[in-house]
Amino acid sequence: MKLATLRDGSRDGQLMVVARDLKTAQLADGIAPTLQAALDDWAFIAPQLEDLSSLLNAGRAGRSFDFDPAQCMAPLPRACQWVDASAYVNHVELVRRARGVEMPASFWEEPLMYQGGSDDFLGAMDDIVLAHEEWGIDFEAEVAVITGDVRMGATPDQALAQVRLVTLVNDVSLRNLIPAELAKGFGFLQSKPATAFAPVAVTPDELGEAWRQAKLHLPLRSTWNGALVGQPQAGEDMVFNFAQLIAHLCKTRNARAGTVVGSGTVSNKDPKRGYSCIAEKRSLETIAGAEPVTEFMRFGDTIRIEMLDKAGKSVFGAIEQTIKRLG
Amino acid sequence: MKLATLRDGSRDGQLMVVARDLKTAQLADGIAPTLQAALDDWAFIAPQLEDLSSLLNAGRAGRSFDFDPAQCMAPLPRACQWVDASAYVNHVELVRRARGVEMPASFWEEPLMYQGGSDDFLGAMDDIVLAHEEWGIDFEAEVAVITGDVRMGATPDQALAQVRLVTLVNDVSLRNLIPAELAKGFGFLQSKPATAFAPVAVTPDELGEAWRQAKLHLPLRSTWNGALVGQPQAGEDMVFNFAQLIAHLCKTRNARAGTVVGSGTVSNKDPKRGYSCIAEKRSLETIAGAEPVTEFMRFGDTIRIEMLDKAGKSVFGAIEQTIKRLG
Repeated sequence: MKLATLRDGSRDGQLMVVARDLKTAQLADGIAPTLQAALDDWAFIAPQLEDLSSLLNAGRAGRSFDFDPAQCMAPLPRACQWVDASAYVNHVELVRRARGVEMPASFWEEPLMYQGGSDDFLGAMDDIVLAHEEWGIDFEAEVAVITGDVRMGATPDQALAQVRLVTLVNDVSLRNLIPAELAKGFGFLQSKPATAFAPVAVTPDELGEAWRQAKLHLPLRSTWNGALVGQPQAGEDMVFNFAQLIAHLCKTRNARAGTVVGSGTVSNKDPKRGYSCIAEKRSLETIAGAEPVTEFMRFGDTIRIEMLDKAGKSVFGAIEQTIKRLG
Repeated sequence: MKLATLRDGSRDGQLMVVARDLKTAQLADGIAPTLQAALDDWAFIAPQLEDLSSLLNAGRAGRSFDFDPAQCMAPLPRACQWVDASAYVNHVELVRRARGVEMPASFWEEPLMYQGGSDDFLGAMDDIVLAHEEWGIDFEAEVAVITGDVRMGATPDQALAQVRLVTLVNDVSLRNLIPAELAKGFGFLQSKPATAFAPVAVTPDELGEAWRQAKLHLPLRSTWNGALVGQPQAGEDMVFNFAQLIAHLCKTRNARAGTVVGSGTVSNKDPKRGYSCIAEKRSLETIAGAEPVTEFMRFGDTIRIEMLDKAGKSVFGAIEQTIKRLG
């Protein structure tokens, strides 16, 4: 099934079930008020949402309305946890090589993962509001999963069983603030402003064959100012799958329902697939021997991130944002 | 007023108002179900909680009961954001000196702050459950504030006006996992297991003269296996106050209601005040020219963290935890 959160002026919005074709939706208000409430009691709530989903897909839901992604908050407008990995190690290696820094071999064996802010997630069509272009505004197109409760010390298989939903992320990054924060060793704080999510999150079964080996095997399309700049296969070159990423997170602690785990920038070794963040393009330019010519985003720039299934239909709806100056 | 959260089997518990002397409490169920709900609508809810607090302190609340810190969850059992600073730069300098690493001068001018996990906070008397002593289990006694909504770009003064509550934290750390995570630059993840909180959070006005200059001017007492090992003044040697810390967090993003901001390990330059984490003690031993002799915590060890007011009364109740092996 497909789930989304309607913007209603409240902090957590209202949970709705969305039809497979993203054309209609219905509030789940008789079942669970919010997505967090559904995740908190998934075994009891999910079957009821599935029933509503079946009715909606059959055109027999009683109170359905046209689905409008512009009215969507992030599926979880605020979450109790957001961690983001760098599972496409190719990307990490390229960026490091461009900086002339060798990448430790351990990066192929143990995931890189940072803890991000989860208090103020952006909806799919919310503006990216920032004070200064000089911070080096970049998008990062990623896949993410939302989990149920995962116990400390869980194996990857145990972790995989707790993947409730899959969605897309724009992990907005401020490139020019990153070097100083990396040097401090304390991770990203100011360099990672609010993160945006696709309008819809879907259960793994909804993805069919495309969800296997704890990876999502579809191309992730990034369109910057109307030009398609990347369509890497998210199922390729992902060195750590979501089961391994969640198990890494849970080595020393529990992860509670509503934890959001990102893949990191999707990146293929084949450069013809394009890029999912500008930093990677600039790294390729640098490695080719020149100064990077592709500049970071400007106020007014747009970014669209979307994933199409084999039939060419949008799976999650599109992230479609504009960079705006803080007013 | 003083607020706490009763463990009732739910994920967020039930909000209660606690008497100033920590002897009685009353559920706030007619006012707000949870502390997060109160923070979400503070201007409307807080005056009603204040009225109940006045009745309770006067012994005239209708449904009061004995307050039992063992029945407390963390004031916010899960939060949308937890960030922790290292505002007592003396501590950072000592730890670095012991490692033979010079501290950048910028650490005196710009706060160090990391994003932590906020999905699974521990109550004041919950066990600290971990798989291996070899990870180097340490406590970190800290002061923390809980905020309302703070806008991106807020000044320290604007940030200060959004400090809703003050409390104590045990930022449990796994010292032997930290060096590898610091080297990656992505911040702490596995090295910071679940964080514990004092049973009670209090409004700044409740602290009187002890809350000034956005710092809490009282000694923070850490008692390890029954021996008092530290009582530094939290108001001294705090290089960045809470207003500056929140403003630092909000440079590139909003912080939403329920954000928890920690001070970092409280540490005074005067070594006679003792220590608020074992790593600092070990650093002092190393600097004195020897191998560190104080070992990290063992299964069965206890840690008590408390703050007394000038009359010797506990302000927040005590964090009182035992280290247990994961079963």
